[in-house]
Amino acid sequence: MQRRIVRLAELEIDPAQIESYKAALREEIEASLRLEPGVLTLYAVALKDQPNHVRILETYAHAEAYKAHLETPHFKKYKAATQGMVKSLKLLETEPILLGAKGQ
Amino acid sequence: MQRRIVRLAELEIDPAQIESYKAALREEIEASLRLEPGVLTLYAVALKDQPNHVRILETYAHAEAYKAHLETPHFKKYKAATQGMVKSLKLLETEPILLGAKGQ
Repeated sequence: MQRRIVRLAELEIDPAQIESYKAALREEIEASLRLEPGVLTLYAVALKDQPNHVRILETYAHAEAYKAHLETPHFKKYKAATQGMVKSLKLLETEPILLGAKGQ
Repeated sequence: MQRRIVRLAELEIDPAQIESYKAALREEIEASLRLEPGVLTLYAVALKDQPNHVRILETYAHAEAYKAHLETPHFKKYKAATQGMVKSLKLLETEPILLGAKGQ
């Protein structure tokens, strides 16, 4: 677990396009988990009070897995498809304290 | 997965007490995952640029599991122990978009 890369993405989406954005994000997450051994979690949620504000907790097995993820066709497709939907994107680099999950 | 409760906690910790805070948090997370069937994930990270800023992604099987969690001895111990360490706490209620994790 020591070399894991964990990032928190904070996005604001154009409210008129939030459903299209969610569909594109779901497709990207499903492909990433199915095709990339080094993608461990992509936990995506919308804030209840601001449904167009999205948070994604991203966990990669190591730095190389994260770099490889950025070059995949499904990630590039997601970036191109959602370019006009994302009003702001903040990527927070983190240090894990404890990544606690059932069955690990 | 429909009834899952997912929350994002955003905390600012007294920088002088961050290591004590992390130790108390780790103990609370380990006990919660070991003793509570309805606690599914407690992913805790510190921001690299602001190491005293902590984010915790909390996933509970359902609302009852979350309510029960608040009444456990280990949670109450954590709250009492960290009361003087936490400068601010924001709890963000969320709607899951997709909780993607390997092996699920």
